[in-house]
Amino acid sequence: MKKLLNQAGDAVADSLRGLEAAHGHRLRVDHEHRVVLRGQDPDVPRVGVVSGGGSGHEPLHSGYVGRGMLDAACAGEVFTSPTPDQVIAASRAVDQGHGVLHIVKNYTGDVLNFEMAAELLADEGIDVEQVVVDDDVAVTDSLYTAGRRGVGLTVLLEKVVGAAAEQGCRLTELAALARSVNDRGRSMGLALSSCTVPAVGRPTFELPEDQFELGIGIHGEPGRERLRAVGARDAAELLVDPVLADRDFTGSPTICMLNGMGATPLMELYVMYGEVSRLLQARGVTIARNLVGNHATSLDMAGCSLTLLTADDDLLDLWDAPVDTPGLRWGC
Amino acid sequence: MKKLLNQAGDAVADSLRGLEAAHGHRLRVDHEHRVVLRGQDPDVPRVGVVSGGGSGHEPLHSGYVGRGMLDAACAGEVFTSPTPDQVIAASRAVDQGHGVLHIVKNYTGDVLNFEMAAELLADEGIDVEQVVVDDDVAVTDSLYTAGRRGVGLTVLLEKVVGAAAEQGCRLTELAALARSVNDRGRSMGLALSSCTVPAVGRPTFELPEDQFELGIGIHGEPGRERLRAVGARDAAELLVDPVLADRDFTGSPTICMLNGMGATPLMELYVMYGEVSRLLQARGVTIARNLVGNHATSLDMAGCSLTLLTADDDLLDLWDAPVDTPGLRWGC
Repeated sequence: MKKLLNQAGDAVADSLRGLEAAHGHRLRVDHEHRVVLRGQDPDVPRVGVVSGGGSGHEPLHSGYVGRGMLDAACAGEVFTSPTPDQVIAASRAVDQGHGVLHIVKNYTGDVLNFEMAAELLADEGIDVEQVVVDDDVAVTDSLYTAGRRGVGLTVLLEKVVGAAAEQGCRLTELAALARSVNDRGRSMGLALSSCTVPAVGRPTFELPEDQFELGIGIHGEPGRERLRAVGARDAAELLVDPVLADRDFTGSPTICMLNGMGATPLMELYVMYGEVSRLLQARGVTIARNLVGNHATSLDMAGCSLTLLTADDDLLDLWDAPVDTPGLRWGC
Repeated sequence: MKKLLNQAGDAVADSLRGLEAAHGHRLRVDHEHRVVLRGQDPDVPRVGVVSGGGSGHEPLHSGYVGRGMLDAACAGEVFTSPTPDQVIAASRAVDQGHGVLHIVKNYTGDVLNFEMAAELLADEGIDVEQVVVDDDVAVTDSLYTAGRRGVGLTVLLEKVVGAAAEQGCRLTELAALARSVNDRGRSMGLALSSCTVPAVGRPTFELPEDQFELGIGIHGEPGRERLRAVGARDAAELLVDPVLADRDFTGSPTICMLNGMGATPLMELYVMYGEVSRLLQARGVTIARNLVGNHATSLDMAGCSLTLLTADDDLLDLWDAPVDTPGLRWGC
């Protein structure tokens, strides 16, 4: 294993130090708890928006802290749930008396630890609502999940919900919005290569030179099937078809993310986006907004995922609202 | 070779179609000439800023077309200079009677083709000034270069010069600014792996599992030396020391870019930025602005590069000015 790290066990702590060094004007880091926080409190007291999960998916979640998106992100060890202590520290730091929304990807450990934290926070008088993201149509029940896995939709949900919080949306309404976004979004991914977890030091799985892993999880969990590698045009069908089979995306404007898993060149992502957008248009899906790039990654995995989200004018307004984070920035 | 492409020979054309599909509200593509153009002309007639080079370095250059940066980018074949015809088409499209600045990375083919285009444009009455970027301290003379290679500084130069053009800077002053930025910037890179050119289908070079290539070129050209892979702390010294040995960056605010070569996870880039910024501080260098991410890549190469640019208040103002491109976006 060759990586630009010091000790494998220090990867998360070292990376947070670098994030803080680069974006110290925008955010601050509670190094004891490995929680990334907004540098400045919101102008008007409001609901706090907290997320987190295993590290290794950057910019998700730490890179989405800032104005118009998350108030705090808890960075677990690589591909490991954050602890309840981390979630409690993050929630205490951002609560301004209007409660806190927890955005949790659907992995058993994450859900349990966020729920435990929510119970303890309730004892302190902090209102918590939780939304569980489970957008991956690839498999039901998986290595670390009961039910569907939470993957790329998390990025879109954090953007939209962060904007609504910034506009003063109350906790129960914000939770309802978050759940509605989750209901209306679907994702599907494929891998060309494995990732290598630093502490393990070897690839999580071996993929022959002529094969794809279709429906890959963001921790290298097995997907639906291994199949012969195909060109971009056919690969686009492998992503689009299962998503459209799971939900009808015609008739409303759609937000489309074509996401790189970490080691896929931008040239290839744009080739894929060209194919995916053409195919969606042919199937009657209208892309109103798009995002192409490495947004929810799996360390050094090569591959990509597609996320679609049914929108309406209100949701597009939330999408377009100013955001100022290391990973997404516009209107600021 | 496993890549998300259709035919290898269509990679550039397909990628430009995807870029246009994703950013058609911001830019348009002359597919015949493979030139990416601003979607809307500038509000006030001004100098046109044109760059280009071989493809495979995305977002450089096509992803930097838009308000506050480039007016046009010529996309050559992968790692191949754009032709004079492309440069002429781009320059004609953006000339508004105030002349055109060509930003050219120092590779023999690029320089020759841009010069040939400039001569033909002069015959048409279009004033052209050229700046050649040669910031790489790794080697003098290389596989495709007489003199130093042009690498990451190109990103910073395109940002700053694009902002000055947007503010109405005249051609001769703009060229002088561009040359001054080139004089004040230096870069150094290292690779953990080779890249694979689609039309070739195999890695450009083989790098043993325990070695770095120090001073790598952005086309996989050999660097200074191969050495035993080291941790991030020592790797930071391998980048910082040669840059500071070549130019004194103390005493003025500095713009620092820590650039990923395409396949390096963001977690590792932030670990490296943490080490690089600490080391620079210890050496008396004050980082006023920074950029961490994949900005000037080499297809699927793993590795990173460091670029430093001496700034002053005027240059920082140009850096902070609004930019609205697929690859860099702020203030818009």
